[in-house]
Amino acid sequence: MNRPLEGVTVLDLTRVLAGPFATMMLSDLGARVIKVENPSGGDDSRAFAPMVNGESAYFMSINRGKESVAINLKHPEGKKLLLELVKKVDVLVENFKPGTMEKLGLGYPVLSGVNPRLIYAASSGFGQYGPYSHLPAYDLIIQGMGGLQSITGPDEEHPTKVGSSMADILAGIFTVIGILGALRARDITGQGQMVDVAMLDCLVATLENAIARYVVTGNVPKPAGNDHPSIAPFATFESSDGFVNIAAGNDALWAKLCSVLGMEEFVQDPRFLTNSDRIRNWPELKAAINERTRTRSTAHWVEVLREANVPCGPINTVDKVVSDPHVLARDMIVSLVHPVAGELKVPGVPIKFSKTPGEIKGPAPLLGEHTGKVLGEFLSMGEEEIQELKRQGVLG
Amino acid sequence: MNRPLEGVTVLDLTRVLAGPFATMMLSDLGARVIKVENPSGGDDSRAFAPMVNGESAYFMSINRGKESVAINLKHPEGKKLLLELVKKVDVLVENFKPGTMEKLGLGYPVLSGVNPRLIYAASSGFGQYGPYSHLPAYDLIIQGMGGLQSITGPDEEHPTKVGSSMADILAGIFTVIGILGALRARDITGQGQMVDVAMLDCLVATLENAIARYVVTGNVPKPAGNDHPSIAPFATFESSDGFVNIAAGNDALWAKLCSVLGMEEFVQDPRFLTNSDRIRNWPELKAAINERTRTRSTAHWVEVLREANVPCGPINTVDKVVSDPHVLARDMIVSLVHPVAGELKVPGVPIKFSKTPGEIKGPAPLLGEHTGKVLGEFLSMGEEEIQELKRQGVLG
Repeated sequence: MNRPLEGVTVLDLTRVLAGPFATMMLSDLGARVIKVENPSGGDDSRAFAPMVNGESAYFMSINRGKESVAINLKHPEGKKLLLELVKKVDVLVENFKPGTMEKLGLGYPVLSGVNPRLIYAASSGFGQYGPYSHLPAYDLIIQGMGGLQSITGPDEEHPTKVGSSMADILAGIFTVIGILGALRARDITGQGQMVDVAMLDCLVATLENAIARYVVTGNVPKPAGNDHPSIAPFATFESSDGFVNIAAGNDALWAKLCSVLGMEEFVQDPRFLTNSDRIRNWPELKAAINERTRTRSTAHWVEVLREANVPCGPINTVDKVVSDPHVLARDMIVSLVHPVAGELKVPGVPIKFSKTPGEIKGPAPLLGEHTGKVLGEFLSMGEEEIQELKRQGVLG
Repeated sequence: MNRPLEGVTVLDLTRVLAGPFATMMLSDLGARVIKVENPSGGDDSRAFAPMVNGESAYFMSINRGKESVAINLKHPEGKKLLLELVKKVDVLVENFKPGTMEKLGLGYPVLSGVNPRLIYAASSGFGQYGPYSHLPAYDLIIQGMGGLQSITGPDEEHPTKVGSSMADILAGIFTVIGILGALRARDITGQGQMVDVAMLDCLVATLENAIARYVVTGNVPKPAGNDHPSIAPFATFESSDGFVNIAAGNDALWAKLCSVLGMEEFVQDPRFLTNSDRIRNWPELKAAINERTRTRSTAHWVEVLREANVPCGPINTVDKVVSDPHVLARDMIVSLVHPVAGELKVPGVPIKFSKTPGEIKGPAPLLGEHTGKVLGEFLSMGEEEIQELKRQGVLG
């Protein structure tokens, strides 16, 4: 066995982000992922800029290692083909608005009727039930409703969304956990089941100490910029060419930091003796540290603070991240060769298995690239039949 | 079978956040999680404020449903006991700085020697190998180095960390995926393995289109506040009592929005005809929309925009999140009763399985609450022997 999900076949009806991110991870872990796309354009994100030779970089980065079969699910023949495919797979994943699969006549009860072993995973903004389940959801809307935006930002007047689509991504990751859990249950019971993951639920589940703090103290957590609420100095400081993060979490690190910054006199200063003192006089202390850190570059401070074992680091922009020696040493940036777009760098697999490592299987598929191959292999359909269905608009 | 991870036993050496978050999820999914803590104080986060009757709300919220066994791993007898326990479990999870388990004489090669079926999962800031693996890591440092801070914030001058400890949480979640993948591999091969998850890798893997955009265009992504880079209006606006997020992703929604806001004349305005026009004249348009939205409350706008099917939502603070009817309808806030702290509300399980639902098994354990029970059950140790080891400082 080479991959953790070897032998698992996934029918992937997902589009855009949360769903494709989930099935990308399943592919990276060794599952065979067959992406079912509508023949007229496919996954919406195939049209998202920026493009390389007409191919979307966004689409290519999160659909690597999948096969593409173009089937028109609104056509009765298309539905029939999907039901036949469902009989042969282990998992189906979709991230439509709840009710869409039912309208297509392809809801979970129908699919589990033809394959009781099927694991049906649905990822959506608000989930399959609950008063908001019918509402449209975008990452911004969910970051706002889920509390994350209310605790991120420079101050109370500026709640700020996370720069990546974190609600989508968290839903994608939790969907993978749901599928893996359901696969384990099925291995034991022989029965598939439905897995319902909502972006909003995922945000609530990851609010972390914000919920614990609120329910116990009644204080509503607010955006706190880059400052730690209860440890100082533990924040972002300014350098001559950018910023440096410093986390001096105890008195010993505080003393070391003062020594590196050439502000030894602060260690004995009664305003900054203990962590509570430093929190109480934080604006003053922050200004004093910034005055020092602004005199030299980020690279300088990171070098000398690391030598002194004070936890620190730069704020890397994306260009720095993708060329960082540690990131590269851990294969977290991988090159793919796409038949049309050429070479493309994408993030690697963030789980390092010692015996069954994950692997990026290959580039993203062209729309319908594997229609003939998959329908031939799974449903024994011949080339002529497939061509006829393409003429009828059932396949692409 | 009632839970996906029924029958799986986890030895949990984790502390603080990333590791405990992972083992909390394993417990919620049905695994039996035995937390091994040092008898002198246990998990550091037991001391994190705020406290309820001397018990940390933070600790209680992410250690629910676990058992606690207090063993001094620096004592030769403690090491022996751990090795005996390792023989009886499926999974061991730790989030020490790399090298710590080796120094204790409990590295993976030793543990897999006594139990080749063991899955050993290690979660750390930089991972078990690579040039930075020895560096100290905190969430802030990793958010900075992993690029997330560089794309979050109101503008380029103010890169901002995410308000929750997202690097820790992502590492915890990916660790769960690693364990589930390794369990599946073990079910087939009979062999355990090591799973290495680094917070930094997890951030790189979730940078999403920031990497695709940069590698293709060479443009370095910057913090963009709450504005969408390529769709307008798709942003946070001001209301009379706060904010409202509005995502009018196409021309039809734009027209509906104008109608709800009473600014119908904008629809035919050549400055705002198409999405490209609206992006080009965004500062002007944003100001005009804010002028309208500031006249009424968030609740008003959410109500009328939802009626018009324009995607929208409030920025909920944590008090609003924990009392939201949808959040409650999906059991995403659950009450636990702790023997010392009393009732505590914690986030629920964000994966809804139709047949083997997750479940919060119970409150967090007191330090060493299950020492006698677990050592009796797993190692057939008697009460007298346990008391003697407690006297010697081996157990707590």
